[in-house]
Amino acid sequence: MKDNKITTRAEDYSQWYLDVIEAADLADYGPVKGTMVIKPTGYAIWENIQKNLDKMFKKVGVQNAYFPLFFPESFLKREAEHVEGFAPEVAMVTHAGGKKLEEPLVLRPTSETVIYNSYSKWIQSYRDLPLLINQWANVVRWEMRTRLFLRTSEFLWQEGHTAHATREDAENFQKKISDIYKSFAEDYLAVPVIAGRKSESEKFAGAQKTYTMEAMMQDGKALQYGTTHLLDQKFSESFDMKFLDQDGSEKYVWSTSWGVSTRLIGGIIMAHSDDKGLVLPPKIAPLQVVIVPLWNNDEEKTAVLAEANRIFDELCGADISVKLDDRDLRPGPRFFEWEKKGVPIRIEIGPRDLGNSSVVVVRRDTGEKENVPMVELSGIIEKKLETMQKEIFERALKSREEKTYSVDSWEEFEKIFQGDGGFVKAHWCGDAKCEAEIAEKTKATIRCIPFDQEKEKGKCILCGGESSERVVFAKSY
Amino acid sequence: MKDNKITTRAEDYSQWYLDVIEAADLADYGPVKGTMVIKPTGYAIWENIQKNLDKMFKKVGVQNAYFPLFFPESFLKREAEHVEGFAPEVAMVTHAGGKKLEEPLVLRPTSETVIYNSYSKWIQSYRDLPLLINQWANVVRWEMRTRLFLRTSEFLWQEGHTAHATREDAENFQKKISDIYKSFAEDYLAVPVIAGRKSESEKFAGAQKTYTMEAMMQDGKALQYGTTHLLDQKFSESFDMKFLDQDGSEKYVWSTSWGVSTRLIGGIIMAHSDDKGLVLPPKIAPLQVVIVPLWNNDEEKTAVLAEANRIFDELCGADISVKLDDRDLRPGPRFFEWEKKGVPIRIEIGPRDLGNSSVVVVRRDTGEKENVPMVELSGIIEKKLETMQKEIFERALKSREEKTYSVDSWEEFEKIFQGDGGFVKAHWCGDAKCEAEIAEKTKATIRCIPFDQEKEKGKCILCGGESSERVVFAKSY
Repeated sequence: MKDNKITTRAEDYSQWYLDVIEAADLADYGPVKGTMVIKPTGYAIWENIQKNLDKMFKKVGVQNAYFPLFFPESFLKREAEHVEGFAPEVAMVTHAGGKKLEEPLVLRPTSETVIYNSYSKWIQSYRDLPLLINQWANVVRWEMRTRLFLRTSEFLWQEGHTAHATREDAENFQKKISDIYKSFAEDYLAVPVIAGRKSESEKFAGAQKTYTMEAMMQDGKALQYGTTHLLDQKFSESFDMKFLDQDGSEKYVWSTSWGVSTRLIGGIIMAHSDDKGLVLPPKIAPLQVVIVPLWNNDEEKTAVLAEANRIFDELCGADISVKLDDRDLRPGPRFFEWEKKGVPIRIEIGPRDLGNSSVVVVRRDTGEKENVPMVELSGIIEKKLETMQKEIFERALKSREEKTYSVDSWEEFEKIFQGDGGFVKAHWCGDAKCEAEIAEKTKATIRCIPFDQEKEKGKCILCGGESSERVVFAKSY
Repeated sequence: MKDNKITTRAEDYSQWYLDVIEAADLADYGPVKGTMVIKPTGYAIWENIQKNLDKMFKKVGVQNAYFPLFFPESFLKREAEHVEGFAPEVAMVTHAGGKKLEEPLVLRPTSETVIYNSYSKWIQSYRDLPLLINQWANVVRWEMRTRLFLRTSEFLWQEGHTAHATREDAENFQKKISDIYKSFAEDYLAVPVIAGRKSESEKFAGAQKTYTMEAMMQDGKALQYGTTHLLDQKFSESFDMKFLDQDGSEKYVWSTSWGVSTRLIGGIIMAHSDDKGLVLPPKIAPLQVVIVPLWNNDEEKTAVLAEANRIFDELCGADISVKLDDRDLRPGPRFFEWEKKGVPIRIEIGPRDLGNSSVVVVRRDTGEKENVPMVELSGIIEKKLETMQKEIFERALKSREEKTYSVDSWEEFEKIFQGDGGFVKAHWCGDAKCEAEIAEKTKATIRCIPFDQEKEKGKCILCGGESSERVVFAKSY
């Protein structure tokens, strides 16, 4: 931030993003390049994400556990595609307890290998399946170009790892989690996502099939918002994850893995915020309402604070997360602070309001001000929070739709990505070479092959080859 | 476990501890020596610990945040005592992203240094104080002799780090957290603890003063159950944690740090369990009640299951954590399974019970069986859980008192530690040399100088020097 002012989106979108984080006091860089300190305000958002997602996981039978941070380098090498995908960004422990280790240890970039090592011991028979486990943990991926929340050398996430007796059961579970991710993103984070399948070259290192949720940020770029993988059975073979089936034969299990990370927070920021700072959907805002009492003298102060405290208690009683900002500061700086921190609703109460038995309620997202009678205030605030949640989602959806194009000519395709970008639905022949050439020419990649779309015959946007459905292209974070 | 049987405490206490963990399916070793996999049943206990402690921290104004896992080796070296204490057990990252790092990175054994590095930027004026932050995280300490939950190379914990304007404020806060730890251990974990101050040689590396909670295990050994530290101002100086005070002068902040870890789980196991397996206090048990329906034929099965399901719903409605074990197995194996897993209450319901409108309720801790009328069952169960919680605590307290001795002669002192051990309250001159010699001769160390005791003149148990209060000696984990 320059002069304590947030750079506008029009001026410099990247700088705007960092300024919003700084102004809202969400995070800071750590001492080692690429590491992040998540400050209390930012971490409280993560706690809300954890709390709600965790409930959704448990509802479908997932249990939490915890697996070690480090494992032998040889684990990673057991599955060829997996090591190829992760080796370049791995961090290694070579010394510990004052000695050089016999074998270097890998800090988990993801935990398939160390978890499968346990599963192979735990799973004996079909009665042990499905095994549905999740862990909330930190992971380490040595990234060259980092950006707070979106890409950091260490980040927090959840990683689910399940084992199933049949491919069908594994696929069904993969889809179930994919649905949970989508509804969590849309209902809680108010971020609309397109769910679909990844192309071969974009899928997880070692997966047969990757599903993804792709969100659009305000600059038209895509943000991958969570992925679920059906893993290749080569994993089960490498880690000897076998079970005795009902028919008496030994079989390899089918496994899935799935995760979302602190990157979700980056996505909330970029999807909803404006040039005044952070905008948070009420369901995920750690603080939903701030009460700002106003006064000119001590007498007024006493009367106004008494009423402000009463309102505070009423809202607390209605399970609304609320703060009373009774600092001896002028209104301006107080309004400004909560605005940039993204508190959904501000309630102003001054001496005149006492006489009218009303307060002024201001929405953070639209700036709309309304005089609201004090009677049944908490009910009105609850409704307003609900409305805001819905409208913030609708606004994001409208913004995505305005920047989503169905394109059939290469000229138009190129033009969009030379301009403001967005999501482009186009035909693709299915060939990885075309995919790579398109990426090279436009920097746009295939974000996903959407689930919810009609089959439609067409010609590949680049080579003109046969295609039976559109895929979504976009530049991405 | 040999032949699926738990070793008794009398036979081999250490093996009994490991067998209880295995029988209750709480944890397993990881692939790297000294690392631990916390299995779902064990992790659910940790989740209960987190949930309740977190609430208590937040009540006194503590906010959660997250700081990086690794920091430059040079950080550790800035405070001389701190590095001396932690250097021997540090794990180092030397390579990342395919390259050798310019400076090796330390995996946090504790986070004072990396957190103070942030605080020095965040704290400007007295208005920024107190700063009360906690993080739930994994830490790494390369231990030679490891034991599940009690000592592992990586473990989970919470570490609180606060900054204050005055020494008095910091000390008060240290005491406040110490009180929280004590009441959490006693009210939730049902583990009585002696709270007190550590001697100079036992305190945290870099602290002026360490408070501790010491619990006694069934073998008479002490387990350190949580510590709080008032840190030396050398830390503030090394990390330049200064603030502009109200009087316009620059001052160094006073800081505290405090933590409890997954070791708490080891303590619960060792304090309460018996030769049949795990015993859990109801407030911390992930599963409080198991319903085991019994039947001889299909007709009975239908009738019994209908009633069992009704009871299940009733208990769920009363916010009791309950499971219905309707597996087609004989009663014995089902009873045995939940017994070794430490579920506090078992409800048996068979065909005869239907006619009597009663069920059999069995307490895990005492084995006591009672016929209970089905009317208002949930109320009765709730009371029983409360009673159990209280009695489990009282039993642990009684066991501690029976093994706590006030001793004034060296012969008696030595004899106790050659025998069954326990807590020995004895006088000590305050000299670290005596302390070391006592430890060498008896393996007993000073666990703490208790808060709640009368001053009393006496003579050092070893050298006969003057003393004004007793200290607690014990062998420890």
